[in-house]
Amino acid sequence: MLNLKTSDTSLSEGKANLVALSHLFYEKNWSLATSSNYSIVLCKEPLNLLITASGKDKQFLSLDDFVTVDESGQLTGSKNGDHKQSAETLLHTAIASKPGVGAVLHTHSVASTVLSNKYCDEGFLEIQGFEMIKAISLDGIKVTHETCVKLPIFANSQDMVALSNQVNNKYHTLPKAFLIAGHGLYAWGKDLSEAKRHVEGYEFLLEVLLKSGF
Amino acid sequence: MLNLKTSDTSLSEGKANLVALSHLFYEKNWSLATSSNYSIVLCKEPLNLLITASGKDKQFLSLDDFVTVDESGQLTGSKNGDHKQSAETLLHTAIASKPGVGAVLHTHSVASTVLSNKYCDEGFLEIQGFEMIKAISLDGIKVTHETCVKLPIFANSQDMVALSNQVNNKYHTLPKAFLIAGHGLYAWGKDLSEAKRHVEGYEFLLEVLLKSGF
Amino acid sequence: MLNLKTSDTSLSEGKANLVALSHLFYEKNWSLATSSNYSIVLCKEPLNLLITASGKDKQFLSLDDFVTVDESGQLTGSKNGDHKQSAETLLHTAIASKPGVGAVLHTHSVASTVLSNKYCDEGFLEIQGFEMIKAISLDGIKVTHETCVKLPIFANSQDMVALSNQVNNKYHTLPKAFLIAGHGLYAWGKDLSEAKRHVEGYEFLLEVLLKSGF
Amino acid sequence: MLNLKTSDTSLSEGKANLVALSHLFYEKNWSLATSSNYSIVLCKEPLNLLITASGKDKQFLSLDDFVTVDESGQLTGSKNGDHKQSAETLLHTAIASKPGVGAVLHTHSVASTVLSNKYCDEGFLEIQGFEMIKAISLDGIKVTHETCVKLPIFANSQDMVALSNQVNNKYHTLPKAFLIAGHGLYAWGKDLSEAKRHVEGYEFLLEVLLKSGF
Repeated sequence: MLNLKTSDTSLSEGKANLVALSHLFYEKNWSLATSSNYSIVLCKEPLNLLITASGKDKQFLSLDDFVTVDESGQLTGSKNGDHKQSAETLLHTAIASKPGVGAVLHTHSVASTVLSNKYCDEGFLEIQGFEMIKAISLDGIKVTHETCVKLPIFANSQDMVALSNQVNNKYHTLPKAFLIAGHGLYAWGKDLSEAKRHVEGYEFLLEVLLKSGF
Repeated sequence: MLNLKTSDTSLSEGKANLVALSHLFYEKNWSLATSSNYSIVLCKEPLNLLITASGKDKQFLSLDDFVTVDESGQLTGSKNGDHKQSAETLLHTAIASKPGVGAVLHTHSVASTVLSNKYCDEGFLEIQGFEMIKAISLDGIKVTHETCVKLPIFANSQDMVALSNQVNNKYHTLPKAFLIAGHGLYAWGKDLSEAKRHVEGYEFLLEVLLKSGF
Repeated sequence: MLNLKTSDTSLSEGKANLVALSHLFYEKNWSLATSSNYSIVLCKEPLNLLITASGKDKQFLSLDDFVTVDESGQLTGSKNGDHKQSAETLLHTAIASKPGVGAVLHTHSVASTVLSNKYCDEGFLEIQGFEMIKAISLDGIKVTHETCVKLPIFANSQDMVALSNQVNNKYHTLPKAFLIAGHGLYAWGKDLSEAKRHVEGYEFLLEVLLKSGF
Repeated sequence: MLNLKTSDTSLSEGKANLVALSHLFYEKNWSLATSSNYSIVLCKEPLNLLITASGKDKQFLSLDDFVTVDESGQLTGSKNGDHKQSAETLLHTAIASKPGVGAVLHTHSVASTVLSNKYCDEGFLEIQGFEMIKAISLDGIKVTHETCVKLPIFANSQDMVALSNQVNNKYHTLPKAFLIAGHGLYAWGKDLSEAKRHVEGYEFLLEVLLKSGF
């Protein structure tokens, strides 16, 4: 899918890939009711992040429904109509500015909402014993089905500065993903293909936990 | 999507938008077996409402499968074959005649049927603590995940005059939606986009409650 | 959809409608693994029934995958390659030969399998209090959500003569449908549109019962 | 679908059929996150097996995403870029080398993961009383709904040599399929059509067991 370059090709290719992904995630019921945001790193230093504009219906996401932002979440480039960045942009930039991250995907599924709400007080979900864990690329670890993945759950908040600080502080312990309670999943990867694989892997595992009686 | 004008363009655009919505909702299993009705306000005063004709298969809904009705639910305009308005039309006109309402959508999902039946005696479902609540636009309130939404459940009835009177009497307390027990969801918005977002938001939240053991 | 005539047009229209229905039911997971059969009455007296040939993958059903049979389930017309009628054909002809029946649809969903297996000893499922019951056309009754529908469950058997005799004997009590334990749903109607509505209505109601804890 | 010949036509037809199957299984959530592998026997003696290359996104599987391997799982034919065989290839070749096997399909569904994990210590799932059992072709047996199918569950392992030896040792007792705990389903058939029917039949039956409270 995506090549992480800063050329115009990369920008238009990035938009086209995120539009296709948006339609897929909407169909899988992971991005209903204008929920979810997807982003791709166009340039790492200084950070220039392509991200879905606030409040768009993901069924109808089009090539025009994006903004670009810098590390502090401020709009870069020429203004695109009245498009605004989402409040959640700060979570994307907090992750996207880290080395080796090329794409960040936030989804909003029923399984992630139910389980992150139920296990919010524990602060994490432990996932072990499933082959699908191998879909997650963990740095410096050869992942097998026996690897124990501890997926953190942050309490939900409308204070995105505080929330992004929490994510920053715990970043080195995160298994390429985290949950926000009653809200959904953030997952990322070195490029969009890997981020997509991480979303699908975690959404599958959460569904498995839910149907196992968790 | 829709522009709320009374011109011919608006009428044909309204039909095209509702046809596309119908096929989507059928695919999501929210409008099986000719259930559901969808309407758009063409003119507010006097009310002229575009609404799906009675008994149509929502998988095959076409541009021809509509009628227009006035505030009392009587057919307006030239007769369209043997198309009739649904008995539920009175619920649509009760809501559509209110200020700021541009579209009304009735869906008939498994989750809304199960939960509205189970909690009929309580008379409402309380929904709180989920980010998806922010998908609902409540008048004069800044909605957060901590907002407590009290979604009313009306007992089902084939007496649509009585049922629409109940809705009228409680209208100022309704969170842009209500349930009818064992029957489904009504949701509305200032335009079709907002009404669609409200349907998707509530259907998602009902699924979350169902899978949380409610 | 279908016009119940015996002309060539009706035959080709019938095949085209059943092919489209087959692809839909496969996608909804009601006809996996070559399960299900669908039939349309081409002529009532003597009975000539268009029915899906045995063992076809319903995802790929084509205009060529049909046979025609008489009241005793024997092939009529010119031979179509090595196509055979299914063993279940006798259940289709038993129903299709009754007055006012234009189409018979057998589906094989998870919900109908689970519930018909669980309640086999009771011999029926009672369904009441749901608006979706109105999707079922019962002869001589004005159906409301308060109508109590008693959906019979026959024990499964590979003896299709015995099973079709049971259906024949109970036919006047059947609510346009019945279940076979661990096997699935048969539903019918005056034409294909009504039979489709009955399948969708019952499959929805069975899903509602299953998710209500039945 | 497939003809089991070794000609170029067979190779390109085999690839096209597996690509279409891949997109279907991805849509049904049986092959998320690059999981699953599918194979077709091009030549039996010596074995030449067409199999999906390692790590491919099954939503986007293309005609180029295949390798061919011999009985020991080593690549045959000219090198195709940096495509590699999956570690699971040895399970495919163990089965594909047996008489009468034309295609082997591995899927990774939620139901198969949950149940194979839960019943791993028992070592098998017993399935009886369901009509869908007739979708499985068992050698030398006339299958009815009363046939008791004992579907084995092997403990998961990253040691594919050991695992494929276990499968080899038990092969004569396997009902054209087995489960790996927390991992998924392997099913096969005389050709791709039969293997697909076995996958759909078992995935349906596992879903039935899961929703029956197993």
